[in-house]
Amino acid sequence: MLNQLLMPEIEELIRANDFDELREALVLFEPAEIAALIEQLAEVEAALVFEALPPDRAADVFEHLPHGDQAALAEEMADESDRLAALLNELSPDDRTAFLGDLEPAVVQELLGLLDPDEREVAERLLGYAEDSVGRLVTTDFVAVRPEWTVEQAFRQIRRYGRDSETINIIYVVDADGKLIDDIRIRDLILAEPETEVQSLMDYRYISLNETDDREEAVRMFRIYDRVALPVVDGNGLLIGIITHDDVLDVAEEEATEDIHKLGGSEALDDPYLDTPLPTLIKKRARWLVVLFLGEMLTATAMGYFETEIARAVVLAMFVPLIISSGGNSGSQAASLIIRALAIGEFGLRDWWRVMRRELLSGASLGVILGSVGFLRVLIWANAFGMYGPHWFLIALTVALSLVGVVMWGTLTGSMLPLVLKRLGADPAVSSAPFVATLVDVTGLIIYFSVAALLLTGTLL
Amino acid sequence: MLNQLLMPEIEELIRANDFDELREALVLFEPAEIAALIEQLAEVEAALVFEALPPDRAADVFEHLPHGDQAALAEEMADESDRLAALLNELSPDDRTAFLGDLEPAVVQELLGLLDPDEREVAERLLGYAEDSVGRLVTTDFVAVRPEWTVEQAFRQIRRYGRDSETINIIYVVDADGKLIDDIRIRDLILAEPETEVQSLMDYRYISLNETDDREEAVRMFRIYDRVALPVVDGNGLLIGIITHDDVLDVAEEEATEDIHKLGGSEALDDPYLDTPLPTLIKKRARWLVVLFLGEMLTATAMGYFETEIARAVVLAMFVPLIISSGGNSGSQAASLIIRALAIGEFGLRDWWRVMRRELLSGASLGVILGSVGFLRVLIWANAFGMYGPHWFLIALTVALSLVGVVMWGTLTGSMLPLVLKRLGADPAVSSAPFVATLVDVTGLIIYFSVAALLLTGTLL
Repeated sequence: MLNQLLMPEIEELIRANDFDELREALVLFEPAEIAALIEQLAEVEAALVFEALPPDRAADVFEHLPHGDQAALAEEMADESDRLAALLNELSPDDRTAFLGDLEPAVVQELLGLLDPDEREVAERLLGYAEDSVGRLVTTDFVAVRPEWTVEQAFRQIRRYGRDSETINIIYVVDADGKLIDDIRIRDLILAEPETEVQSLMDYRYISLNETDDREEAVRMFRIYDRVALPVVDGNGLLIGIITHDDVLDVAEEEATEDIHKLGGSEALDDPYLDTPLPTLIKKRARWLVVLFLGEMLTATAMGYFETEIARAVVLAMFVPLIISSGGNSGSQAASLIIRALAIGEFGLRDWWRVMRRELLSGASLGVILGSVGFLRVLIWANAFGMYGPHWFLIALTVALSLVGVVMWGTLTGSMLPLVLKRLGADPAVSSAPFVATLVDVTGLIIYFSVAALLLTGTLL
Repeated sequence: MLNQLLMPEIEELIRANDFDELREALVLFEPAEIAALIEQLAEVEAALVFEALPPDRAADVFEHLPHGDQAALAEEMADESDRLAALLNELSPDDRTAFLGDLEPAVVQELLGLLDPDEREVAERLLGYAEDSVGRLVTTDFVAVRPEWTVEQAFRQIRRYGRDSETINIIYVVDADGKLIDDIRIRDLILAEPETEVQSLMDYRYISLNETDDREEAVRMFRIYDRVALPVVDGNGLLIGIITHDDVLDVAEEEATEDIHKLGGSEALDDPYLDTPLPTLIKKRARWLVVLFLGEMLTATAMGYFETEIARAVVLAMFVPLIISSGGNSGSQAASLIIRALAIGEFGLRDWWRVMRRELLSGASLGVILGSVGFLRVLIWANAFGMYGPHWFLIALTVALSLVGVVMWGTLTGSMLPLVLKRLGADPAVSSAPFVATLVDVTGLIIYFSVAALLLTGTLL
């Protein structure tokens, strides 16, 4: 990271308006480090540092900034349209798509107008893809060669386009129509004689993504094939660009973050926690919390339904939190295991029966374990402290059997709900821990009081 | 993926014992695809397919297999120690570490004995690193050059060692002692004149990881710097190896999976869900479930403490699930937001006050929102259905005020607990949704019945 020791000196240079020194000092740092510096500065100073960067470095730094800082810098440059145009033209197509994709449509139109015709066409096409599709991650900065070229001709192409290319680790081979027909590692080109024809190095084996694939599919493919980049083709097999490992790592982390936020029972935050404005933070949490609250109200209704039972045997109320929370906990465990397995593609919907069988067995075992502990709890308290009156054995049995039922039900709900949601085309991660707990709470009460009615009528009830 | 249409034909070849044909058919596939095929086959057939692969391909395929299949194949080869030795020597050092690291110590010693002296030394050193450290991901297959060499000499080195190297995208420059002094992109070497000296291309700016760093630090560094590989140095700055983007993507996904499992309230599974033996699956869930159950028992104790109040005003029992679950839900939201932010390094412990201030404000707002909804619930039911008797207004107030308190408390507990755990050197993800809910349930009951005592004594109580 940026040497923290140098920070004060750089701030000093900004204060002194010594831009020549500043420019020289900044040469020493990585674009990611300069971006980290800009993030820490106030808006005006950030703009000054950014202005001190040569155009190509400025684009590199811009690509490493979070969206909020990007938007602020772009606004700051609004009246210097030449500089803004140069920056936008210099950005890699994928980073430009990410930047433009988060802006208001009117602003996007204005900024697109600043692009050179070629870049504009690329930008418009990439922005046309759905937000979570592979197309949104595509960069058109890659090197393609033709099978009939020699290795020497291929290197000429690499020298010509390689400087802007995001990777030259892999070179793509296309036919006369632009259809992707192979990929070749640069290593094989380097190790080959210059006069060799490219096609003699080809094995016609390649992996590609489709422009409309979900971006989670890209993560899966990169994990399987360990590639630095994968080519992206359209419906006709034409090579439209590549996506690179660094963007895929970001996607993997973002998707995991979204799932974790949802699993905790709130909407996913779009920005880092501390950068999310407080009203947004509250709104994203309040919506689900209110939905869950409305669902949980059914417990008050259910409890009302058993009011006479509770009045007759107050002891029953004692165990309500213990029993319903056990259902919620086992459901939350099952949901998180299944949601994650679905997200990383460990299994699909067709495996529902294998999952269900495992969860039935797990649920039954876990239920018996908790049921036994619950039985012991009542037994010990009854005999050691004389609690729960003369019918403590029946109460212990009620608690134990209810726990078996509630834990099984919680496990089954938690594991099957994500599959059902996926089947319906919804996001499995919506079946969050609190959501499953809420669903299971009402059922848990019904199970508990039904078992109580069955076992205790005639004695306590 | 492996063309599903070809699967039956390959199975046919295995059944027919036609290994020449099989060998030819397998040439058409990627190592990852052959690995996927082997995963689907029974153990004996898997071993046959694996045997049909030439030694270097066999190592590539082996690296793509999950640990269970690797161990099975190695056992299958136990009496052909030559083949096993060839395989182990051929594996990349990082994949070999991952394979050996999961085996019994006695087996590891035996397998290490099969390695060539050089490889053995490397393997032993890498296995010496802590399990979640960067050192465990290191591969020693990289190309290093000296600053005084010419570009042509550098290319000679690349041609010599590049074939085995995991990446030649970046070449490392070391001094006479083996200290890392720079990294150079292959692109710059390709674009330079052959007689140029390497040092004239150097900027002495490089990013490196330390061998003892946590592997999550590697993910953060790759996300910031977008590199294909990063060099790893020891305490003296000596270059010991590199780690590559593909392993880092795997680590990112594994760490997220672990956090999601823990957040759901179970121990993290080491293998994919469907590959985890049922007893292991149950054990990993039962342990936490029992711990949570024991904690939740305190609710029965707390409820017992308020038994007289409940007996006098059974209506109070109605709202118990609603109130405690609201605390649990808000706590689970807060915990998941904070745990994820800590995991991806969005902020550190020193920011605790900023987090606490935001959570106090969020908790208060969310509490007021839920409190209002709760108040309306009692008000409407009382007036529409004549429930809750003459003192419904006091009951509504009790519910509303308790909700404000419980939600604030849940939010605060959920957000601060991960920070406290991290401060104590524990894993923040341990403060799972169910764990926070359990902690908050008992406190929630105390808050609720205290508010009730305050407002209802003299009327209902």
